[in-house]
Amino acid sequence: MSALKTMLNPKVTAVVGVSTSNPFSPGNVIFRKLAFEHGLPTYPINPKGGKVEGVDVYKSIAEAPNDIELVVISVPAKYVPSVLEQCGEKGIKSVIVVSGGFSEVGSSGVSLQAEIVEIANKHNISMVGPNCIGVYVPDVLDTFFLPSERVARSTKGHAAIISQSGGWLIERLEEFADRRVGIAAAISIGNAAQTKVTDFIEHFGNDKNVNVIVCYLEGFSEGEGREFVEACKNIAQKKPVVVLKGGKSEAGHRATQSHTSSLAGIQAVASAAFKQYGVIHAVDEDEVMAYAKVFSFAPKYMMSDRIGTLSVSGGHGVIASDEASSYGLEFPLFSEEEQSMMREVMTPAYRSIASFRNPCDLTGSASDIDYEKVLDIMLSFDNIDAGLLLLLPYAPGISLQIGARVANVSKQHPKTVVAYVPDLNKYEVITRGFELNGIPVADTIEEAVQMLNGIRARTRYLQKIGVC
Amino acid sequence: MSALKTMLNPKVTAVVGVSTSNPFSPGNVIFRKLAFEHGLPTYPINPKGGKVEGVDVYKSIAEAPNDIELVVISVPAKYVPSVLEQCGEKGIKSVIVVSGGFSEVGSSGVSLQAEIVEIANKHNISMVGPNCIGVYVPDVLDTFFLPSERVARSTKGHAAIISQSGGWLIERLEEFADRRVGIAAAISIGNAAQTKVTDFIEHFGNDKNVNVIVCYLEGFSEGEGREFVEACKNIAQKKPVVVLKGGKSEAGHRATQSHTSSLAGIQAVASAAFKQYGVIHAVDEDEVMAYAKVFSFAPKYMMSDRIGTLSVSGGHGVIASDEASSYGLEFPLFSEEEQSMMREVMTPAYRSIASFRNPCDLTGSASDIDYEKVLDIMLSFDNIDAGLLLLLPYAPGISLQIGARVANVSKQHPKTVVAYVPDLNKYEVITRGFELNGIPVADTIEEAVQMLNGIRARTRYLQKIGVC
Repeated sequence: MSALKTMLNPKVTAVVGVSTSNPFSPGNVIFRKLAFEHGLPTYPINPKGGKVEGVDVYKSIAEAPNDIELVVISVPAKYVPSVLEQCGEKGIKSVIVVSGGFSEVGSSGVSLQAEIVEIANKHNISMVGPNCIGVYVPDVLDTFFLPSERVARSTKGHAAIISQSGGWLIERLEEFADRRVGIAAAISIGNAAQTKVTDFIEHFGNDKNVNVIVCYLEGFSEGEGREFVEACKNIAQKKPVVVLKGGKSEAGHRATQSHTSSLAGIQAVASAAFKQYGVIHAVDEDEVMAYAKVFSFAPKYMMSDRIGTLSVSGGHGVIASDEASSYGLEFPLFSEEEQSMMREVMTPAYRSIASFRNPCDLTGSASDIDYEKVLDIMLSFDNIDAGLLLLLPYAPGISLQIGARVANVSKQHPKTVVAYVPDLNKYEVITRGFELNGIPVADTIEEAVQMLNGIRARTRYLQKIGVC
Repeated sequence: MSALKTMLNPKVTAVVGVSTSNPFSPGNVIFRKLAFEHGLPTYPINPKGGKVEGVDVYKSIAEAPNDIELVVISVPAKYVPSVLEQCGEKGIKSVIVVSGGFSEVGSSGVSLQAEIVEIANKHNISMVGPNCIGVYVPDVLDTFFLPSERVARSTKGHAAIISQSGGWLIERLEEFADRRVGIAAAISIGNAAQTKVTDFIEHFGNDKNVNVIVCYLEGFSEGEGREFVEACKNIAQKKPVVVLKGGKSEAGHRATQSHTSSLAGIQAVASAAFKQYGVIHAVDEDEVMAYAKVFSFAPKYMMSDRIGTLSVSGGHGVIASDEASSYGLEFPLFSEEEQSMMREVMTPAYRSIASFRNPCDLTGSASDIDYEKVLDIMLSFDNIDAGLLLLLPYAPGISLQIGARVANVSKQHPKTVVAYVPDLNKYEVITRGFELNGIPVADTIEEAVQMLNGIRARTRYLQKIGVC
């Protein structure tokens, strides 16, 4: 495992496959990122020698200095075995093979891939790839060969992402940045010829800096699926593991074969196995985002399925009810007594038009203080396990302070609470007010319900194994 | 129907219920919007007289001038009957009742609501509401009592929205503005005491400026459901009608009752009936957006279920395949000959790593011209009915011109094409390039598939009734 630790935090790196004529070649992009953006001592390597960006080029790994901890290989596939052999002879333990042209292109590539695995194993090298875009650790390193201006710089945080698709990974980085979810590391695993998703699950499972692990999987070769869920079983006791499985449909599965040459996969048993082993199974990219975000907040438990909901628009309550129902979550009808308790704290002029049956609709006449007071009462009810706050800041009585105000009420209660605020720049102050005070904010009503579903699924697993 | 036409384009209006002491009262907000933002001659009315914003206040509708075409009533419920009576006596045919306190608050409100319907009917008044936020027609009028700085100003366009929830409507206006979908009109129908959703369906169905009608429904009173689908049957021959039905779950249904007092609704038969009558049934807000947007482009037909897909990331193809499959749409496997035809036009250096089986993955090495050339070949294949373009502009060979370039290739073919581009400001040029050239752009892969599903559903209906 320590080779992976070095891979994600090397002191000195080398890039094999820089071009002295094409500054836009993948090797050069990677070299510039490592050397200049991240300030890592990095040796550029090309058999022809010369200079790249004013830096002397070494003709081979063998000729380069001895302090290299990570090598990134970006040369045509047929040259990869000899470069890897040199890495082994030099005692380098961490290598990322960006090059394509292996198992994903058919039988010739399959044997070449077997060859590099054998070399890596012989020398105890931890090899990521081939056919990957490598690894990204905020503030530390970035081996993605994509131009920097095209990829979001994520903030440092506590979510680790592992993906069998580089494109999918890049998009998640953009999305996580946009949704203010910090990243601990992002791994493009490529063909996973030697280092597997499971290795990184175990690595991040034991990394105290990581709060949630997010995986995109397309398939496993024989036996790997079992290893994966066994690893998850151990890790899920410590932290949530969220998995999206691509290739459910016939065409989708065909596409995974053309893409990473993975075998039939474990779709049929995936959902049940994931559930048994505590893996949180996301069915689409929206759920991935909802679960990643909510767990980055380390939410309180949700001990049963019952939600109390406050809105300022009847339609929002209706839509949330329908969504919750599709996830098996309930909105219990509040008793007459409970309804009276809430009604009593509302501004008298609006009491008669508000509804408190759950979902509660405080109406467009409600103000911040109505929302605070009713929430404080609602969160004290024994018949709910979580609070769902639907904010429609168009109502004239709702101010931009409502996020922080309501979050501070929530803090007084042991129940988990999530909020929905429309995704508009003008409401950024509301969203920040919630999030800086520990309440995750969803972009859509559906996402807010998915967040609660994620919390409930995780709590249910922890209840099953006796943790809570 | 002409009273609705006047309601949406009045020459002179009056607002009953302005306050001379509280400039933020709903009546005052509405008065300022009509008089100053929209420059409509508008009489403020309050029994006490005085001045509002420097304008003389009339003491009643009876005392106001005779040229009023639309009256907006925002007074406590108990005063609404007498105001409405005065409107009738003055020969005013269009009235919007913003006031709450009718059927949505229980039995006392039910009888008051029956009373105002009787008055409106007696005088042949078309009355929208009560308990609504009224109507919004870009550049013409806006009776929403929400502060202007809180609500997006939609651009003028061809989508009409009718909603039983004011909150839902406001959010769609924000979302449509954000997604560049123009609005012809937006109607908050409230309790729909007299003027029904069906009346507006018919009105917009016959309005040549409207390309697509979008409805949010929570329920119908007895007999109304049948009238609604019959109206849709007529209108759907001319233009798409997209419906989202809220209140599917028990709690959701309970919420609709507390909200607009609608009866049991037609959920059980809704989906089948909608399909039979050509209504496009959206299951959630994401589908509403996808369908509204794609039909605002007046897309070409999609004669069968088969899609050809181009991506530059294998993972995107996998996810699109899975999504398409869940909608019953297919990605046919391209023949060896077809694959060769596409491979031949690729840049030689990348031919061997690209995949053309469908979904086609041109890889992160592809350039604009590869994308153009392969698309041109693919759209000529007889075994697909539509093109799905998945753009990952992070690839270094993809320029910001790709949208316009690819759209211009699509124009040469009779097949419908939609695109996915990540929703980031930096790709705005790509998105505009597509959309200005007639290709709708989705925010997510899922939305792109939903757009094709909407086109396919509509084409299927038009095939059934012999239109295409």
